[in-house]
Parts: sequence; C-alpha cells; structure tokens
Amino acid sequence: MKAFYQDFKLGIIGGGQLGRMLLQACPNFNLHTCVLDPSAGGPCHGLANEYTQGSLQDYETVYKFGKQADLLTIEIENVNIAALYQLEKEGVTVYPQPSVIEIIQDKRVQKQFYLDHNIPTAEFVLVNNRADIKTHSGFLPAFNKLGKGGYDGGGVISLKDTADIDKAFDDYGLLEKTIEVATEISVIAARNSLGEISVFPAVECIFHPEFNLVDHLIAPSSLANEIQEAAEKIAEKLVKDLEIVGLLAVEMFVTEAGEVLVNEVAPRPHNSGHQTINANDTSQYEQHLRAILGLPLGSTKINKASAMVNLLGEEGYTGAAIYEGLDKLLKIQGSNIFLYGKETTKPHRKMGHITILDNDMDALREKVQLVKKAIKVIS
Amino acid sequence: MKAFYQDFKLGIIGGGQLGRMLLQACPNFNLHTCVLDPSAGGPCHGLANEYTQGSLQDYETVYKFGKQADLLTIEIENVNIAALYQLEKEGVTVYPQPSVIEIIQDKRVQKQFYLDHNIPTAEFVLVNNRADIKTHSGFLPAFNKLGKGGYDGGGVISLKDTADIDKAFDDYGLLEKTIEVATEISVIAARNSLGEISVFPAVECIFHPEFNLVDHLIAPSSLANEIQEAAEKIAEKLVKDLEIVGLLAVEMFVTEAGEVLVNEVAPRPHNSGHQTINANDTSQYEQHLRAILGLPLGSTKINKASAMVNLLGEEGYTGAAIYEGLDKLLKIQGSNIFLYGKETTKPHRKMGHITILDNDMDALREKVQLVKKAIKVIS
Repeated sequence: MKAFYQDFKLGIIGGGQLGRMLLQACPNFNLHTCVLDPSAGGPCHGLANEYTQGSLQDYETVYKFGKQADLLTIEIENVNIAALYQLEKEGVTVYPQPSVIEIIQDKRVQKQFYLDHNIPTAEFVLVNNRADIKTHSGFLPAFNKLGKGGYDGGGVISLKDTADIDKAFDDYGLLEKTIEVATEISVIAARNSLGEISVFPAVECIFHPEFNLVDHLIAPSSLANEIQEAAEKIAEKLVKDLEIVGLLAVEMFVTEAGEVLVNEVAPRPHNSGHQTINANDTSQYEQHLRAILGLPLGSTKINKASAMVNLLGEEGYTGAAIYEGLDKLLKIQGSNIFLYGKETTKPHRKMGHITILDNDMDALREKVQLVKKAIKVIS
Repeated sequence: MKAFYQDFKLGIIGGGQLGRMLLQACPNFNLHTCVLDPSAGGPCHGLANEYTQGSLQDYETVYKFGKQADLLTIEIENVNIAALYQLEKEGVTVYPQPSVIEIIQDKRVQKQFYLDHNIPTAEFVLVNNRADIKTHSGFLPAFNKLGKGGYDGGGVISLKDTADIDKAFDDYGLLEKTIEVATEISVIAARNSLGEISVFPAVECIFHPEFNLVDHLIAPSSLANEIQEAAEKIAEKLVKDLEIVGLLAVEMFVTEAGEVLVNEVAPRPHNSGHQTINANDTSQYEQHLRAILGLPLGSTKINKASAMVNLLGEEGYTGAAIYEGLDKLLKIQGSNIFLYGKETTKPHRKMGHITILDNDMDALREKVQLVKKAIKVIS
C-alpha cells in the first residue's frame, strides 16, 4: 500500500460527525481524503480534500466514488453493499470488508451470527411480518426490531403483551426477549489487516432518570472488574470471529446477575468512543486509521476519567443553529466542545458533544449536570 | 463576534505545520478557515476551507487576505506588520495584536521590553553593525543575534572572543552575554481578550549529547518545583505585560544556580507544545482558538508524562519523502505520529513529530531512543 504520500486517497462513505472526526485525524498520516454524502453541506463538507454529493444507497454512485480510492472505508453502515462487493472484486481495498458490513446491516443475520459463534445475546426469534409475530405471542414481552434500516434508536419497538402487536412492524425483523437490564455498556475493539486486535476499556451508558434515553457516557465504567473483562473478551472474540478490519463498537447489556449480553454492533467509529480523543493514549479515530492502513494498533489506555454528553438540538427550535452558553460551558474546567458543523438545528438533533475530563468521579458527575445546564442549541 | 457559524471566517497567516495542527482543531468551533502561505502546497494545503498562495511580507497580499476575515491570526511572526496595522485600523480583529507582533519581530525591541518590565533575561548590548561589535569586544563571550529575520535557530552566532568577530553579522542586532545554561525550558501561556491568563506546565528541552541541538522535549520537566513555578510566573507576567491575545511561547534558560532567564518568545503555537494534543486537558491549538475567540481558557493540566521527538529529514536524502520504519515506530506503545504533509524531504527538515506517552520516566526516556532508531525520512 503506497500510503503516507499526498496522492494516497482514502475514500470515506458517509459525511456525518463520525466522518468529521475521522477527517481531523487523517492529516497525521498524510492522507488525501474524499467523502461521499447525500447532503450538499454537513459535517465533512469543506474538511475533506474532495467532497462528492450522492446517495449512499445508489449502486452507480457508490461504485464510481469507490473506484477512485486507494482505500475505502465507511462512517455509516447503511451503504449499497453490491457496489462494495464489486469494488472489492476489482481490487479496491474496502475496510471494513463488505462481507462484515452485510452481516451487520441486517439485525437478523447479526443475531444469527452471535448464536452461531457462541456470543451471548438475548434470546430471539426471526419474524417476517406482523402475522408472524402473533404466532409468537407467547414470546412476549419482547422488542420487535426491523431487520434492516434501523439507525440511532429507530427501527425498534417494545411489545409488552399481545395488545401491543398492532404497533409492531409488518416487516422482516425479529423479536428479542425483553431482559432486565441493569447497565448498558459499550466496548470498541479494533483489528488490523495483520490480525492484531486491541480493545478500548468499557464505557458505561448512564440513562436519563425519567426518559428511556442515554443521558451521558462515563469512562471507565463503574462495573466490577470481572464484568468489564468479560465484556472486553466478548468484543475481542467478536472482531476475531468476524475477521473485521477496522473498528467494531459493541453495545452490551449487563443484567442484575452480572451476565453480559451483546445488543448490537457497529463496524465503525462510534458515539461511545468520542472521549478517547482527549482521554486515551490513542483515539478511536486514529485507531480506525491504523487498523485499515495495516499499521500496528495504538495503546487504548485511559489517561483520565471522562464523561461524554451529546449536545442535542433544543425542543421548540428549528433553523440556523445558535450555541447559547458556550462561555458558561467552557468555564467548566476539563470540558472540551466538539461542534459538528450542522447549519440547522432541530429538536434532538446531534449538533455536537462535550467531553469532560476529571479523575474525581463525584466531581465528574457534578460537571455533567453543570454542562447540561450551561449550553443550549437554539435558533 | 458572530463566531460558531459556518460563515465566520478565521484567517491564518502562514501555512506550516503549526497552521496544520491549528486547522485540525478548528472544526470543533465550526470555523470557516482561510490560509495564506507562499508555497503552492505544504502542510495547510487542502485542509483549510480556502487557501491563498502569496507572500507574507507583501503589504498588498497580506492586506487583501486579511480584509476578508472576521478574525485574523498568525502561525509565523515574520509577516508584513504595516498591513496588519491597517487591517486593525479598518476594524478587522487581529490576534495577536500587530503591536505585540512588532515587538517580538525585532529581537532588539523584545530584549528592551524585558528590561523595561523587569523580566529576567541575559545581559545584552544593542549593536548596529560589525564595527559596533568591535567596540564591545570586552562584552564577549556573547551570542550575536540579528534583530530581525532569524527563525528556527537561524540569525544567531556564537562569538567566543575577538577573533570570532569577523564571523559576526554586519547588521542591526545585539550581543547577548553567554551564560552557563544548565537546562533549557519552555512555557506556553495564553491570554484571552477578556484578560484571563492560563499557563501550561514547563517543558524541558533535552539537548543532544554531541550536537548543540534540541534532541527531544519532556513534559513535565524534571526541575525543582520552585524553578518551574518561577518560570511559569515569568510567562504569566510576560503575557500580562504584553497584553497579548493568543498564545505566547516563552523559551527560557535555567542556570546552574537555578536562575530563570527569558531567551526569546513566539506569539503563536510552538514546537514545545505539540505534546499537549495527547497529554493535557486542552491542547495548545485549542487554547489559542479559545483565546482569540474570546472564550474561557481551558485547563492546562498534564494527564500523562510525555516526550516529543521531531521527525527530521535524514542526511543525504532530498526528494519525495518516504517514511521508513513507520510500522516499527507505531509498535512502541504510547507513540503517536504527526506527519506534516510536506511532499519533499531534505536534510534536517521538520517532516513531522512523534509524541510518546508514558508515566514511567525511565521507560519514557528509553522509548525516546527507540523512536529515534525506528523511523527515518528518506527519499
């Protein structure tokens, strides 16, 4: 691979915030970057050396974009897979591999993969439509998940009992047994083209006390060491079994009994790894680049405890974004802001995030509350 | 200031590696960036939203470039100062201020400033030419420094005795008493437009045992606390007295007796602050942006001990750069590489740098030696 020269082209499919932060790491390896994204502007616009506007689902668009790249990667998994296979066949290096992306794109295939490889996961049954779900009413309470197309919390519905079945998706998907979750965690692992594997310490998702939403993330997690180690081992086994080249973010449930179950995975940088930019020896973005460039993986050690708070568009505001309270926010020692370059805000849109560094866990938790009060994205 | 919108333009004069790393921090504040540099390519090319090729010494070029910016800053101090004054007069915010850059551009004025403000510095006399130096032969041994134009070690010559005077600059400059230096250190301070000041911990410059060159930097320094504190206080006083808005890197000598003397300063991000990207709560680049944007300054706390090694072009090679041993280098745990995007290498050219993170100071020093052996820039 003739990398580290100005003319080595890294193609990134998807131009969202994950691509943006990946682009911020690219200069360190002298990469020439091209991005494909459906939007005219957005987080990666103006930051990549080349920017192509086009659909990620269109075969011709993805094929043509990928054909010019020396190395092709993704920052979102909802991509035309046939085009990626064709590019791979024609000699373009595509990492993560199309075969891995294809498994992950379909939650049914993903779950079957866990079963086939003894990866612990909640019990499930595959369903083809709503009528199918009715025949499995004894399996409820369960989550009904769409096979394809769910993203960022979408494509999932909770079915408590048979009365809820009318709300279920009338589509290919699955029913996943509702389990009592004590904690949600995430582990990001990396595997390079030489087969080397490296795992970031587990990150804990703290839920909002009222809404069923992740409120913030804390790294390292407060879980017992053996649970963290179990989770990290599962992530390690997963990247090995998938033979993925690149990052794999593994979202997991921890039950009251301390059992660790895989929820779902993403073959790319992840929301739960933003804090690695400031808090770890190597950031998830640099780690992804090292993995796909065939370089030795970096140390994943945590240097400081941290929290990550998503900066969401305030309810009631849609339009050109205004960041109210940035001054107040940045007065909080150890806080760093990452704005995503989105011109317009709308309710709950991810407009940026804040990383807070503090080794005193009580002070860290206090600062999370201060951060949330300090800044608002309005219009 | 209408910052944090896509249309807020930050102009950066100079397109070298300091500009490159500054650009990597700009997306976090949604800045639209424009760079002025004399070269067609180089470290900032393709990374800024707009790139203008032109002379930094030419009045019209600098004026025209600056006129389009909402906020103008520098990454090199050798800039047409008249143009900056005119831009400031016409309402463009220029940080650091032209008045500060002007003081620093001329080492004679810089030294006089230290004297006037009780900033400890080596004894000196101003000289206008070589003949002048002869009349001060009793002042030798001394360093003869050019008033203007010296950069990166240039413009300085050591005069041991009267026999050396023939080698002296026949130009405006100064003689600085040669002092017995035990250690060289650097402190980077920041001051924002509200007058808030923040100081990074002192960094120690480790010299090559044979050549009279900085070999690598270590942070934190191994000096006694009271010496570090004295140095940090001097840097703090300097930014206050200069009323600079932005970063000020203060290079200092520490004598055997523990006296701290200011050598020279730079009003911008500095080679001695690269490691802050990985090792501190806030990087020097983000700190510079916070300062010039009028935002609260970030915490400068060190989270992990680090070393910084410049990656210089190998002797005997000139041409398209090849990075030999990148694999070997990145196997060293805690090492991170920053390539500068320079297409051609030549002997001793700064092609990149490596940051090494390790809290065990002995292991850190060992890794410095491993790093230097691992990687070579050839052609």
